[in-house]
This record gives sequence, C-alpha cells and structure tokens, in this order.
Amino acid sequence: MQIGTDNARISLRNDYSEGAHPRLLQALAVASAETNRGYGMDTHSARAAALIRDRLGRDADVHFLAGGTQTNMVALAAFLRPHEAVIAPASGHIATHEAGAIEASGHKVLTVPTADGKLTPASVQSCVEGHHSEHMVKPRLVYISNTTEWGTVYRAAELQALGAFCRSRDLLLYVDGARLGSALTTPGNNVDLAILSKEADAFYIGGTKNGALLGEALVIVNAALRADFRHVIKQRGAMLAKGMVVGAQFEALFDDGLYFVLATHANVMAARLRDVLQQVGVPLAVDSPSNQLFPVLPDSVVERLQQHVEFEVWERRGDGTTVIRLMTSWATPQSAIDAFSAIFPALFQDGQAVMAASQAQGA
Amino acid sequence: MQIGTDNARISLRNDYSEGAHPRLLQALAVASAETNRGYGMDTHSARAAALIRDRLGRDADVHFLAGGTQTNMVALAAFLRPHEAVIAPASGHIATHEAGAIEASGHKVLTVPTADGKLTPASVQSCVEGHHSEHMVKPRLVYISNTTEWGTVYRAAELQALGAFCRSRDLLLYVDGARLGSALTTPGNNVDLAILSKEADAFYIGGTKNGALLGEALVIVNAALRADFRHVIKQRGAMLAKGMVVGAQFEALFDDGLYFVLATHANVMAARLRDVLQQVGVPLAVDSPSNQLFPVLPDSVVERLQQHVEFEVWERRGDGTTVIRLMTSWATPQSAIDAFSAIFPALFQDGQAVMAASQAQGA
Amino acid sequence: MQIGTDNARISLRNDYSEGAHPRLLQALAVASAETNRGYGMDTHSARAAALIRDRLGRDADVHFLAGGTQTNMVALAAFLRPHEAVIAPASGHIATHEAGAIEASGHKVLTVPTADGKLTPASVQSCVEGHHSEHMVKPRLVYISNTTEWGTVYRAAELQALGAFCRSRDLLLYVDGARLGSALTTPGNNVDLAILSKEADAFYIGGTKNGALLGEALVIVNAALRADFRHVIKQRGAMLAKGMVVGAQFEALFDDGLYFVLATHANVMAARLRDVLQQVGVPLAVDSPSNQLFPVLPDSVVERLQQHVEFEVWERRGDGTTVIRLMTSWATPQSAIDAFSAIFPALFQDGQAVMAASQAQGA
Amino acid sequence: MQIGTDNARISLRNDYSEGAHPRLLQALAVASAETNRGYGMDTHSARAAALIRDRLGRDADVHFLAGGTQTNMVALAAFLRPHEAVIAPASGHIATHEAGAIEASGHKVLTVPTADGKLTPASVQSCVEGHHSEHMVKPRLVYISNTTEWGTVYRAAELQALGAFCRSRDLLLYVDGARLGSALTTPGNNVDLAILSKEADAFYIGGTKNGALLGEALVIVNAALRADFRHVIKQRGAMLAKGMVVGAQFEALFDDGLYFVLATHANVMAARLRDVLQQVGVPLAVDSPSNQLFPVLPDSVVERLQQHVEFEVWERRGDGTTVIRLMTSWATPQSAIDAFSAIFPALFQDGQAVMAASQAQGA
Repeated sequence: MQIGTDNARISLRNDYSEGAHPRLLQALAVASAETNRGYGMDTHSARAAALIRDRLGRDADVHFLAGGTQTNMVALAAFLRPHEAVIAPASGHIATHEAGAIEASGHKVLTVPTADGKLTPASVQSCVEGHHSEHMVKPRLVYISNTTEWGTVYRAAELQALGAFCRSRDLLLYVDGARLGSALTTPGNNVDLAILSKEADAFYIGGTKNGALLGEALVIVNAALRADFRHVIKQRGAMLAKGMVVGAQFEALFDDGLYFVLATHANVMAARLRDVLQQVGVPLAVDSPSNQLFPVLPDSVVERLQQHVEFEVWERRGDGTTVIRLMTSWATPQSAIDAFSAIFPALFQDGQAVMAASQAQGA
Repeated sequence: MQIGTDNARISLRNDYSEGAHPRLLQALAVASAETNRGYGMDTHSARAAALIRDRLGRDADVHFLAGGTQTNMVALAAFLRPHEAVIAPASGHIATHEAGAIEASGHKVLTVPTADGKLTPASVQSCVEGHHSEHMVKPRLVYISNTTEWGTVYRAAELQALGAFCRSRDLLLYVDGARLGSALTTPGNNVDLAILSKEADAFYIGGTKNGALLGEALVIVNAALRADFRHVIKQRGAMLAKGMVVGAQFEALFDDGLYFVLATHANVMAARLRDVLQQVGVPLAVDSPSNQLFPVLPDSVVERLQQHVEFEVWERRGDGTTVIRLMTSWATPQSAIDAFSAIFPALFQDGQAVMAASQAQGA
Repeated sequence: MQIGTDNARISLRNDYSEGAHPRLLQALAVASAETNRGYGMDTHSARAAALIRDRLGRDADVHFLAGGTQTNMVALAAFLRPHEAVIAPASGHIATHEAGAIEASGHKVLTVPTADGKLTPASVQSCVEGHHSEHMVKPRLVYISNTTEWGTVYRAAELQALGAFCRSRDLLLYVDGARLGSALTTPGNNVDLAILSKEADAFYIGGTKNGALLGEALVIVNAALRADFRHVIKQRGAMLAKGMVVGAQFEALFDDGLYFVLATHANVMAARLRDVLQQVGVPLAVDSPSNQLFPVLPDSVVERLQQHVEFEVWERRGDGTTVIRLMTSWATPQSAIDAFSAIFPALFQDGQAVMAASQAQGA
Repeated sequence: MQIGTDNARISLRNDYSEGAHPRLLQALAVASAETNRGYGMDTHSARAAALIRDRLGRDADVHFLAGGTQTNMVALAAFLRPHEAVIAPASGHIATHEAGAIEASGHKVLTVPTADGKLTPASVQSCVEGHHSEHMVKPRLVYISNTTEWGTVYRAAELQALGAFCRSRDLLLYVDGARLGSALTTPGNNVDLAILSKEADAFYIGGTKNGALLGEALVIVNAALRADFRHVIKQRGAMLAKGMVVGAQFEALFDDGLYFVLATHANVMAARLRDVLQQVGVPLAVDSPSNQLFPVLPDSVVERLQQHVEFEVWERRGDGTTVIRLMTSWATPQSAIDAFSAIFPALFQDGQAVMAASQAQGA
C-alpha cells in the first residue's frame, strides 16, 4: 500500500496515520541490537536529551514519553497541588480530547473561549480574576498548544507577553507541542526552541506527529518543577522499560535537524493544498499557516469529497455548510496533493451550484 | 556491540535490556510504510487480537498497551469502584515496584506474605476475612503474577482452586503476565492460555519482556468488565496514536508461535545457568523453573562477580550472604552461558574459602 | 446579639449565618444525654430516615451527611465510573463554588449555559451529543439544583421532562437540594418529595440552610446506586462518629413538618422584601420566587446600602449597575424587613438621581 | 436513659457513644442565637484558635474540622505530592479503619509492624531504607497516633527522638490526636502541647472523643504546609457552612481547661477498671495507661460478659482466649465502674474454671 492513500482514497485525515521516517526505523534497529540500560537511562536517551538542550541555550530536564495525552497528564500531575487548576483555551486538546485525563488526576480545567485557539494575557487575566475565593479552584498553570488545535501559531511577541503575564501572576506556562515542529517551521515564524524555553516553564516537543513511531520529549525548564519527576512518570505508567525506543528516535530526529525538515515538508504540502482551495474561492474557518486547514464547504461537497479523500468532519454548522479538517504530514506525498487538485475544483463548483439552487428555492 | 554483553560484562541483569526480535522489527517496518487507522483501530491490532482469541477458546476483548505498570493501572482503574481494594502477594510488582500507581488511582493494595510469591485460596481468604467492616476497604480483586516475582509458576490445579475461590467470594482474578511467556513454557507446565482464560477475569500477555520493543496484550474475559474500556485507556494516557506499533509486533509474535519459541529459549538458557550453579553447590533462595534464578552467595563472591557479570542484587541477608537475581531473556546467547560457566566455579570456590576462614576467625 | 443583625447591620447575606431552630437544639440536648450507637446507626437517624421515606411513597436509602459539597462529592464519587462526567448548568454550585471537589474525585463537570440556572432536555441533549467519542469523557449524570443558584424553581412538568429524557439516554438525574425546602414551599410550587423521588435517581434535602446546625439528608432512590454506599461515606471522611448529631436534627425537622414551616417563613420574608423593591421600581436580574432575590442597583446605591445591610455582591456589570443578592432564612425576623423597608426607598431614589445626573454629564 | 448504659448494659464500648458535655451544648445554644460569619470565619473559631495557640508557645494555623478520618484525609492530601507516601504503624487508624481514605487521595500508606502501636526512629529508618528507588513510592510523612490504637502513650524523649530523626531525613511528622486529651493526662505523662508542637509538623486535637458533639482542631505548625489549606478543606467537602458549630465547642473546651478535665476523668475511670481486672489476675494484651484497656479473657467469659457489658471484641486468638477492648470516656459515670466491679470477679472466676476443665479434658 502506498503512503498517503488508504483504499485508494487520498489520505488527509491526520498526521499519525503513517509510521516512522526510515532513518528512525534504522536507528531503532541499531539500538535494538545492543544491550541498553532500562527505563530511559540508556545512552540514546541521554544523547537525544543533550541534542535538545543544545538548542535551548539553557539548562533543562528532558524526559521521553510515549504520547501527548500521557505527557500532559504526567506533567500536570507532577506540577500541581490538589486545588490548583489549569487555564486552557476552550479548543485545547486537554479540555476536549483527552477523556478527562487531567480531571482524573484531580485537577479542574478552566476554559476560555477564543476565536483562533490562542490565549492572551487579557483572556487569562479574566479567568484568573473570576477565581478569587477559597470556594473555587485556584488557577495555577496556563496551558497553550503551538500549533493550536486550529492550526494557528504563536508569534514571539505573543509568547513573550503571555510569559511575562504568567510570571507576574505566579502562574506556570506550559506548552503542548504535539505539533511544535509544524509551528516552528511555518513561513514567517519567529519562535525557536530558545525563545520558547525562555517563556515556558515546561513544554513538549512532539515526535508522534512528526516522523516517529511514538514519543514526545518533555522539557522542564523551571528548576522548581524538576524534583522527583521520574517517580511521577513511573507512577502514571509512563516509564518504558526499553526507554531507548523513544530515545533513539529523538536522537535521529535531532542529530542533524531531520525534525525540522519533516515538519517543513508537512507545511509545504499544506500550503499547496491551500492554494488549490483558494484558487476556487473556498473560505477557511481559520487562517492557519501550518499543516492543518479548515475549509468551509457546502454539505453536499463534503459528502462527495468523502468518496475520494479521507479527512475529519470538524463542525456541522447547520446552515448548509460544514467545516472539515485537511491535514498533511511528514509523509504526505506530492502525488496526494496532485490527486486532490485534479478532483477538487470540479467537485466544489458542482456543489456550489447545488447549494445556490437550493437556497434560491428556499427563498 | 554484541547482544548479551555491556562493557564486556556478561549481561544477566534483566529481560528488557535487549530490543526486539528481528521479525518484529521487520513487521514494524512494513506496517510503518502503510497508512493505518489510528488509536489501535488498525488491521494489525485487529489481527493480533484475533490470533490471541483463537488460543483462548472463548470470547474476550484484547487491548494493546505499552507497558506492564500501565496495563495494571488502566485495568484496575476501570474494574474497581472507589472503595474496592486489591489483594496481592507482598512480593507483587503492583505492591512494590509501581511507585504507587494503583494507589494513585485511589485503591488500596492489601498484601499477603508468601514464601514463593504465590497466593492460595487460604491466604486470600484470610485477607478477606480481616476486612469485614465498612470502616475498611472492600477486597474485590485478587492480583497474581505468572511467573511470579520469584520466578515461580502456578500449576493448573492451583489456578483452578484460586479461580473457584474467587468466584465463590465475588472476587475478580487478575493475572499480571509480564513474564507469562516464560511461565507457559517452563518444563512440566500444565497451564495454557485457554486454561488461564477460564480462571482469570482478565490477564495480560507480556511482550516487552519477551521479544517486543514494547507492548502488552490485555485480555478481558469477563464481559462485565469490558464496557467503555477504551475511554479509560485514553483517560490514563495509554492510547497510542499509532496503535499498530504494538499491534504489528503482537501479530508477529502470535502468527506462528514465535512468542513461545522466544520464551522457551530464555528458560533453556536459565536452566543451563542453574546447572552451572548447582554443579558447585550454590543454594537457591527459591526454586524457580523459569528465566529468573535467585542464588545465595557469599558477599565476597557477589562483589567479585560484579566485575564480570551484570545482575541485580536482590537481598543482602546480613549474615555474610546475599541473594542475587540472574536473568536470561529471549536474546541471551549461549556464549553468555559459556562465559559464565568459565569463570563462576573458581570464583565461587575462592569466595567460599574466604567466608569459611572469616567464620573460623569470628568463632 | 439579636438574630438578624450583626454590628447593627440588617443581615440579608445568606441563609447560614444563623444557627439552629430551638427545637433542634432541644432535640440535640436530649440525644446528647443518651448513649447512642455510633456512625449513624443510632435510633434518631433511623427514625429520621423513616420519616423522610414516608413522604416519598417508595423505598429509598437515606444517609445523613454534614454539608452540601460533601454530599455532592460522596454521591458522585460513589455513582460514577472514572471516565464518566457530570452535566451541570454553568451556574451550578458543583461547577463554581466547590473548589473542584468533583474533579478531585476524578470526574469532569461539563457545563451548559442557562439564563435562569435550570437545565432542560434540549440543553442536556446538546451536551450529550457533543460527547460522542472515546477520546472524550462520557456524560453520565445530570446535576441540577432546586432551588437553583438563581433562586428559581423547577415545575413538576419540567422535572418530569428532564427525568424522562435522562432515562431515555441512560443518564442519572441528581438534585442538589441545599435549598430544597425553599423550593418546595414557594407559592404555586407543584413539586413534592414524592414527585421528586419519582424523577431523580438521588437527591438531598438540605438541613444546613433550613434550620439545622449542619446536615443534609441524601436520598438514594435508584437501587442500583445503593451498594456499599457507607464504605464511600467513610472513605471520604464524611461519616460522623456521633451520627445522631445530624439524625436528631432531621428527626425534629420532619417529625411534624417543621422543615416546611421554616422554609415557608424564609420565602414569606423574601416576598415582603421583593414588595419593597418593586414598589420603588427596582429591576430583578432573575425573577425568583424563593428566598433569594437578585436586584439590579446603581453602584452608588450598593455602596451606601452596605453601610446598613449585609448582602453579597453578585455581579458588577460595568455599566454603572451591580447585581446583588438579598437572602432571607428561617431566622430572618419581620423586624429586619421593616428596617430594610424604612431605609431603602429613600436610599434608592437618591442613588438613581446620582446615576441620572452622572449619565447626563457623560452624554 | 442514663448516660453510661444502653438497654441496661454497662457501656464500655467506646468514647463516642455519648454526646457533648453540657457546657459545650450551652456554648452552642448561645452561638446559635447569634449571627455569625460562615465557613469558619466566625469569632468563636477565631477565639478557640487563639486559645490553642496560647498553649503552643509558637505560631501555628488552626483549622476546625468535623472528624478524625476527615482531618487525616484533608491534611495529607494538602501536604503530599502525588508520589509521596505515608509511614504508619500497622495498627494505625489511617492504615486500617479509614476505608482507604488516604489511598483515595492517591497516596500509599506503608506500614511498620509494632508491638505497642508506636513508631521509633529505627522502625521508620528501616522503612525508608527499603524505599530507595524511583520505581517505588517516596516516604515523606510519618504518621503516629497519641494515644495509639493500643492505648499507649509517647514519652517526650520518644517524640523528640522521632522528631529529630524526621528532620534529619526530610520527613514530616504528623500526629493523629483523636485521643490526644487522654494521652496528655495519663499519669506520669511528660508531653504537653508545647512539646508536641515543637516536634510535629502538624497534629490534631481530638474533640469528638473528648466531650464535643463533633470536631477536631488541626494545628499546622510547619509554615511551609500552610498555604492555601482552606482551599483543600473546601475541596474535600470538609468546610462547614456554620463553622461556629465546632469553633464554639473548642472555645468551651479550651477556655479554662475543660478539655483536660474531661480527659482526666476518662483516664481515672479506666484506672479503676484496670484495678478491678488486676485484682482477679486478668492479663492485659498491652499495658496502656489511658482510657483504653485490652484484657485477655477466656472465650466463655467474653460471651457471658456481653450480656452485661457493651464492649468491642478486639482479637480472637484461637487458643480459647479473646482480647477485648474496654473503653471509658469523659461521660463514664462511677456507677458504671461500680456495676462492672460488682459482676466481673465472679463471672471471670467461673469462666476460668470452665477453661481449666476444658483444657484438662483436652489433654
């Protein structure tokens, strides 16, 4: 089966349907044939951590975990006292798609509505000020994603403003980097790991969605949050006996910048897809520069498109249109974009005609 | 670096220092090049589950998870109400080496002392009868390991007696199978997956310690325990986005019985090691037929042995002797046994002489 | 010091500033002089439970607990599996003023916006339908308050519609009755304990805010929710050694209907207060028939009123007006209403004049 | 019904069968007739806290809670990080009779066997040294009771040694004082609240078992443990709306030393009971100087005694003898001791004769 297609449909569903980049598989095969120390104390994990630290320009603890929900769950369980709460955008993964993992460790997730998935000092402040009493939870940690769940990206000035606000209010800033690679390689981005690590108390660098079989690198910058962290990893079932499985993959990703090459590829593929959409005038629900696109399509187009393309239905608007999510990955081939480009314009124009006729009839 | 050695020392430390069997790596490479559905809904996981079900002779849900502590944590969180407790042997992994993972999900682990790591109806009954009041936790689930943490193995009659007792007392029986492969392939063993699944409400088949990079197959036999289980997997951070990573490995392990071939190898290597020990009269703390051996050695022998062999110090007895753990794996080469055999007898006899002299002096 | 005033200010702050009705104190003194069985197994608790059951017309378990947050916490911990969530109005006590007690027991509280603090089948359905995937929590229990946090009351038809909807979707219906006495005695109310117990799986009858020193009676109607409940009470630190302290008070409240007499008094006092407000044309944020009133006042009036009256500031609207909460209780004397009536009209008219002048100036 | 008897049996079952001392009831009646601030911010709670602080000779936070299990649960939830564990004697209330309350907040309770219910630096050290790895929980808090569950009492030197050891190992020392009054008033005791507060990081002064309807005073000495504690009280359902209910009772207990008078009475009654037992040669399982006695009696004596006296059966030894617990309280009248004294000697001598005959027959 060719990468990028399933049952002959063009695969634009997500960025975790494909496996690992061949260089990561090769690194795994090599490490697998060695004898390594267990539980993440192996030389591959140590070297991968060192490679990441080199890019920060400051000291940090780096832990390798298996997935994003797990990383969020372990980190927040370790960082928070029982009555402390998280502030997250209403669209935040932690608030919507982690099956209550944060609540299962005892903490409330307070949500803030946003247009584009991003928090600002003002929106955080408003939430903090609404929680002033000992009969309420105490906001303690601000959770953001970069890229966000709407594919948007924080500018350096935005991150710095948020970081400064958090420090002024004794709030921790935590960044979910499931798609950090995509964020850091969008055109015009001015954030890098050094800037990020200056503002965030902790963040993770997502591997699962950028070329690895599995794995995220959690970076704990704030020294006050580091103590006994491995106890908590173990307690939450997140310590791999063969820790080199993630360590060796991150070593391959960060040895010579492959991580950024793969993320750039996903972004470039998405940009080409955006061109296809825009050439026929498809509106986007949110203007995202990364590997996620959210076109708004007539319902009838969505239905017909599903016969040719795999994607997620994001939001049925009830007005005859639907927001869908198209997503590219490190493994999306140019041929998938070409195939999409070959079918979409006609399909969309037919659908628009149908909708216009239907609306005329309804009027 | 050759499998089985690290820094030129003979590796008998554990069964997770080596990576995956080449056929599993190959299966992973193939699956990695495909487009697969995420979150364990892929065809490899489905086929691996079917292969396991075939061996049970009854219906069951099979879920693939990353590690043993995680599997125990997710299963018990899903199976128990808040006030319900687990009964485990005092040596049980869940009681000693999981950093309080079960307690972190709210449940007390009640422990029962044992000589050999095995529970019996009588020992369980005694614990149940000590917990009769609503001021106490309510014992609800009996946790055993096979092989146990002392390398011992349950006979079919023992499992059946325990299963019958549990059913008679409305207790669930759960089997930690981190080393189930080793248990099922020890000489003279009369338990198989069909028998096990008749007695246990749930159990897991360990992959991490028997040829996989990572992964355990949790088998839920009791239909009353199955509802919404995937919600709990997700909630505990245990759902891999690329579920095929474990699914494809288990497919390779169970396609034609590789799982049992690998476990048998580990047991055979351990048996040869036991011969070496017994030929020079080393006593064993527990008589285990599996891939874990617990020789009792003079302290001075232990010290000198560490220069040549990697192993775990299990228990310092304070009487001049120490129990160590020697462990083989699917990857232990015959050359490691030969190397051990070449150095151990002389080293042991010297050590005994030292101890005898020291004792004479002390007397 | 006279009941109803503190530092000479008129007390309209809440319904828990005053202690217990003298008949409850007398009952306590009598029970205190006896020897009683501990942990709620005393004859007073048994009789109080029987008196409550008599009013239901059906079987139920009745447990006596110390406070409302505790009762919600224990009940929901006992009723829900780990991944199950609560649906509550955004104004629900459980969602706002319990310091994350429900999350601390592992469960997410999903909130639904409302105008008047009440849930409807439609608003619940909308929340349920948004939670359809195993990556999300599973809505399982619908939490409502009667009276609500806005002082509003459910009609029988509303409760019945909600009950029927919950049963059709396998949802539990739970009613927080911290102020159930007030709800059941509002003018025109057509709900009684029999009707309530037909629709709700469990609910509690608040004593703390209606004449008791402390205490709530949790009624578990649904037989499937009753097993082992006292284990969970004990586990959450909610089992009083001298359970008769609550039992004897509820016995006094339900022996001859004192519970309803006290609640009626609070409602009557509130009605008189409403008359005073309406005679001078004060708008109410929500039209509540119970012992809580939410007048909207010019900020300057609020400030001056605080010199004479104790009350809660509910919401600063930022447009020169503020919503305050005036609350009566079983212990509010007619003299407090008279005193309010003597000062308020002049104070309000002055304030209005100030605001009008200020607005004219601003224009 | 007369205090001290139930159904005509002599009440020696426990120290919470009787209600509150009349002066506490009177204090409650007075406070009940006032208007008080809610949630423990009332003047009675403030004054009671000040009275307690006066006896410490140092600063501390004092919080009033409803019961012992609740106090332990709230305190330990607030004090510990998720992976941190408690060390307790195997007989500790927290380990046996709190229905897993500590585990329900996520923490493991490690137990140490003892002969008399008391921990020593050596026994704590042994437990700490067994928990050296990140695969294990991390011991962080040492829990002791004074009096212990065996009625024994810590000497000042014992407390000081334990406190010094804890400080040297970065362990917190927490004292469950459910029966602290009894401990501090045993003959020859050399510990007072000042000494206790010098060694313990936190402890509680039990009211429920010494004259109050309900209530414990938690004293947090260690400043590092005080932050946000009221948030955690609220979150665990432990904040009483009418906090004066406990505050006013503690005010009455500590205003002029009533607390110590009541505890002394219980101890004196127990001493007289001990005399009755010893005059006929009854052995005691543990030699306790406080209000709990543990005589060892022939089974037949126990059976006959139950017809006349209420008490707890503590341990059936299986050799024809049983340990029972006889307990006095602040409310035990001299008449109860007299009644016991009138029936016990004959009853015991008959029972011994029966046992001797039975043993002769068996031989």
